[in-house]
Amino acid sequence: MSNPFFKNHGPFSISEILKFLGLKINKINSDYEIEDIKDLNSSRQSDITFFHSKKYKNFAKNTKASFCITTNSLKIELPNNCIPIVVENVLVSVAQLTAKFYPDSIDDNFDDTVVDISKTKFKDKVKYGKNVLLGKNVLIGSNCQIGNNTIIEKNVSIGENCSIGSNTIVRNSIINSNVKILDNCIIGKHGFGFFPINNKNLRYPHIGVVLIEENCEIGCGSTIDRGSMSNTVIGKNTYLDNQIHIAHNVKIGGNSIIAGQVGIAGSSIIGNNVKIGGQAGISGHLKIGNNVEIAGGSGVIKDIPDNSKVMGYPAKNIREFLKENK
Amino acid sequence: MSNPFFKNHGPFSISEILKFLGLKINKINSDYEIEDIKDLNSSRQSDITFFHSKKYKNFAKNTKASFCITTNSLKIELPNNCIPIVVENVLVSVAQLTAKFYPDSIDDNFDDTVVDISKTKFKDKVKYGKNVLLGKNVLIGSNCQIGNNTIIEKNVSIGENCSIGSNTIVRNSIINSNVKILDNCIIGKHGFGFFPINNKNLRYPHIGVVLIEENCEIGCGSTIDRGSMSNTVIGKNTYLDNQIHIAHNVKIGGNSIIAGQVGIAGSSIIGNNVKIGGQAGISGHLKIGNNVEIAGGSGVIKDIPDNSKVMGYPAKNIREFLKENK
Amino acid sequence: MSNPFFKNHGPFSISEILKFLGLKINKINSDYEIEDIKDLNSSRQSDITFFHSKKYKNFAKNTKASFCITTNSLKIELPNNCIPIVVENVLVSVAQLTAKFYPDSIDDNFDDTVVDISKTKFKDKVKYGKNVLLGKNVLIGSNCQIGNNTIIEKNVSIGENCSIGSNTIVRNSIINSNVKILDNCIIGKHGFGFFPINNKNLRYPHIGVVLIEENCEIGCGSTIDRGSMSNTVIGKNTYLDNQIHIAHNVKIGGNSIIAGQVGIAGSSIIGNNVKIGGQAGISGHLKIGNNVEIAGGSGVIKDIPDNSKVMGYPAKNIREFLKENK
Repeated sequence: MSNPFFKNHGPFSISEILKFLGLKINKINSDYEIEDIKDLNSSRQSDITFFHSKKYKNFAKNTKASFCITTNSLKIELPNNCIPIVVENVLVSVAQLTAKFYPDSIDDNFDDTVVDISKTKFKDKVKYGKNVLLGKNVLIGSNCQIGNNTIIEKNVSIGENCSIGSNTIVRNSIINSNVKILDNCIIGKHGFGFFPINNKNLRYPHIGVVLIEENCEIGCGSTIDRGSMSNTVIGKNTYLDNQIHIAHNVKIGGNSIIAGQVGIAGSSIIGNNVKIGGQAGISGHLKIGNNVEIAGGSGVIKDIPDNSKVMGYPAKNIREFLKENK
Repeated sequence: MSNPFFKNHGPFSISEILKFLGLKINKINSDYEIEDIKDLNSSRQSDITFFHSKKYKNFAKNTKASFCITTNSLKIELPNNCIPIVVENVLVSVAQLTAKFYPDSIDDNFDDTVVDISKTKFKDKVKYGKNVLLGKNVLIGSNCQIGNNTIIEKNVSIGENCSIGSNTIVRNSIINSNVKILDNCIIGKHGFGFFPINNKNLRYPHIGVVLIEENCEIGCGSTIDRGSMSNTVIGKNTYLDNQIHIAHNVKIGGNSIIAGQVGIAGSSIIGNNVKIGGQAGISGHLKIGNNVEIAGGSGVIKDIPDNSKVMGYPAKNIREFLKENK
Repeated sequence: MSNPFFKNHGPFSISEILKFLGLKINKINSDYEIEDIKDLNSSRQSDITFFHSKKYKNFAKNTKASFCITTNSLKIELPNNCIPIVVENVLVSVAQLTAKFYPDSIDDNFDDTVVDISKTKFKDKVKYGKNVLLGKNVLIGSNCQIGNNTIIEKNVSIGENCSIGSNTIVRNSIINSNVKILDNCIIGKHGFGFFPINNKNLRYPHIGVVLIEENCEIGCGSTIDRGSMSNTVIGKNTYLDNQIHIAHNVKIGGNSIIAGQVGIAGSSIIGNNVKIGGQAGISGHLKIGNNVEIAGGSGVIKDIPDNSKVMGYPAKNIREFLKENK
C-alpha cells in the first residue's frame, strides 16, 4: 500500500473526516490530524484504518491506528488505543475516504500532462517513433526504445534496455530492465473495481501500480490493470502472449509462460514456472502453486497445489479429465 | 429501424428497383415512387417491405407497404394493397436493396471527413489531447474530455460529462451523459453480418447505431458493433470490463456488470441487474432475464429465466453444475 | 521457408559457424562457405540443415546439405555427403544460427524506418488519413485506402482495392487484392516462440510472413502473427470477426467464417468452408478438415475430419455432446 506515485492530499483533522463521512460523534477530539488511511497491520498512530470482517480479528487486536472505520458488532475487537468509527458500509466509507486522501487514484481520464518526447530531456537518450507522448513523473533508463503513437502517461518508471511497441499506453507502472511490451497494450489503468449502486456505481480507488520485473515480454493487445490496495506484479522472465487480460492485484511469479487470450481475475496469485494454455481463465482470489500446468481453455475455480497439471472446467487433474472425456 | 444518421438515397421508382434486382414484372406500374425499405410492421404505403418466413405471417397480413419482396409460396399471405415481388433469396435481395437506399451503411472504411478538433467549434468546449480527430455530424455536450489519438468519426452524439480515453474510435453512436469509454475501444463499427457466397461474400447493411445509456463504463480494448436492422444498446449504469465484445443488435439492460473478455453474440437480449463473469460467452438470439448471474467461463446456449444463477458449458443451474463437477 | 523480406546476412564459413556455436571440430574444412540454413528437404549443397527427431529420418537420408546440426544418436542416419555437427540441443543451436543468418527476424522492435505517407511516392495513389506511416519495402496497389494513425511497417505488399482501417499495424505481410483489415489490428508480428530458459528465455527467429489471400476481411482488434519457419495463411474469402488471435504458422483455407474472440494456436491447419463459433479455441499442430463446423465456446484438442460438426471441451460430435448435456 506504499505507492510511489499518488499524492497524499492529507493530513485531515478527524472532525473533517467525520463530517466528510456524514457522521456526528461528539466525544472525538476534533483537532487530531490523520495522515493516511492504511490497513490494520501497516497503520501507524497517526493513521486511520478499517476493519470489515471477522477474519481480520487478530490484525484488529494489534493495530496501532488511532481510529478505525468498522461496524457496531466488530468494534469490540479493537484495542483501547483505537477509537471505532461505526458506519453502515465499511468498504464504501473506506473507498470514499481513500478517494479523499488520493483523489487522483479514482478516475483514469486521459493524461493531459503529456508532451511530445522531442520536447523533453529524453529526446537524446531514447530511440523513439513519431507522435510519442510522455506525461509527468516519467523516468526512462538507458538504451530504451518507444514506438510510434505510444503514450507513456504520468507516473511511469522504465529500466534499461526496454522496448515499448507502438500504439501502447502505460501509466502508474514500474517496468524493470530488459522488458518488452509489444503493440496496442494498455498497462496500469485502474481495475474493474466498484460498489454496485443502482443508477450510479461507486468506483473505488486504485492506489497500486503495475510492476513488471526484468526480462518479461508482454504480447500485443494485452491489458494489465494496476492494483487497488496492493500492486499487480508480473515476475521476472515471465512471457505473456497476445490479447491477455491481467486484472488488478494479480501477482504472477517468475519464469512463467502464458498463452494467448488468457484472463486472470482480480487478486489471484500465480507461482513460478507456471504454464497456462491459450484462453484459459482463472477466477479471482485463488492461489496457483509453483510448476503448475493449466491446459488451454481450462477454467480454474479453486486453488491449485504446486506441481499439478490441470485441465477442464472446472479444472481438475489432467489425467482424470482426459480419462473421463475420451 | 429509424436511423438518425444514414442518408436515405431514395426515393426510387419501382421500375428502377425491379431493374436493380434483375427482375422483369410487366404488370407493375413503373412510375410509382418508393421512399424507403422497412419491415412489415413499420412500412407505410410509400415503402417497400420484405417477408421471408412464415413466422411473420400475421405482420404480413396487415402490412401497409405497397410492395413486398417475398417468395412464391409466401406471397399468398399478403393483403390486396401489397404487390408481391418474388425473388430467389429474399434476404439477399433485401440486403442489396437496403444498400441502394443506404449505401453508407455497408462499408466501414476509415472516415475521411475527420479534422483535428482544434479546427472545429469544439476546440474551446471540450478538454482534449493531442491528435484528436472529429468527423462530420458530431455533437459533444458540455464538460467532456477526449484522450490522445482518439477518433470520433462521423455520426456521433455525446452527452454531458463524458470521458473518452485515448486511441479509441467511435462512429454511428449515441452516447448519453456521464459515460466513460476507456482506451483502445472500437464503438459503432458494422457487425459481422454477410451472406456467405463462394469466392466473394455479400455484406449486408448495418443501419442501426450503438446506444450507450447514461452512467455506463466501457473497459479498455472493447468492441461494440452497431446494429444491422435495430440498435445495439448498453443500458443505464452498466459497466463493462476490458476486452469485451458485444455483437450487433445486442441489447443489455441497466445496472449490469460484465467482466473481462466476455463475448455476446448477435441479437441476444440481456436483462437488468445481470452479472456475467469473465470469459463467459452468450450465443446469438437468446433472451437472458433480469437478475441473472452467469459464472465466469460459462457458455450460454439457451434462454435463461429471471433470477437464475447458471454455470458451465452448456450453462445450467449453478448448484446442479457444481454438484456434478465436484 | 523462402522469405521475400528478411535479408540473408550470409554466407559464413563453416569455421565461423562452428565458432559461433561454441564448437571445435578439427576435421572440418574451415573455408567452406555456407549460404543458408534450411530444412532437410529444401537444403542445397551450399546450405547447412538440422535433424532433431527420428520422424524426419527419411528426409535426413536424402538431404543435399553439406552439413547438418544434429545429435550423437541421430547422426548415423545422415548420408555420406552430409557432415554431422553434433550439439547438445539441436533446436536451440538452430535458433541461434538462424538468427545469425537473419538477425532482423528475432526482435519486433518498432520500425524506425517509417515516414509519413505524404512524403512517399504513394501520396497520390492511395487515399489516406492523418498520421499514416509507411516503412521501407512497402508496395501498395491501386485504389487502396489506409485509415488514420495506421502504420504499414517494413516489408509489406498490399494488392488492389484494399481497405486498411485506423490504428492498425502491419509488417512482414503479403495482402492480396480486395482485402479489408479493420481498426486496431496487429498483423505480421513475430509469434509466441522461444525456448524457456531460467531468468532469460531465448526467442527463436520468425522468418515467415502473414499471407492474406484475396477478398478476406479481418475484424477489429485482431492479431495475426507471422510464421516461424513457414507462413501464416488466411485463405481466399475467409472472414474473421473482432478480437481474434491467429498464432504463427496457422493456415486457414478459403471461404471460412470465424466468429469473435476465437483463438487458433500455432501451426494448426484449418480446411476450406469451415465455420468456427465465437470464443472457440483450437490447440496447436492440429488438422481441421474441410466443411467442419465448430460450435462457439468449444475447445478442440484433436484433429477433426472433413464434414464434421463438433462442440464441447474437448470438442466431440455435436449430437453426442448435446445428448449428454441436456
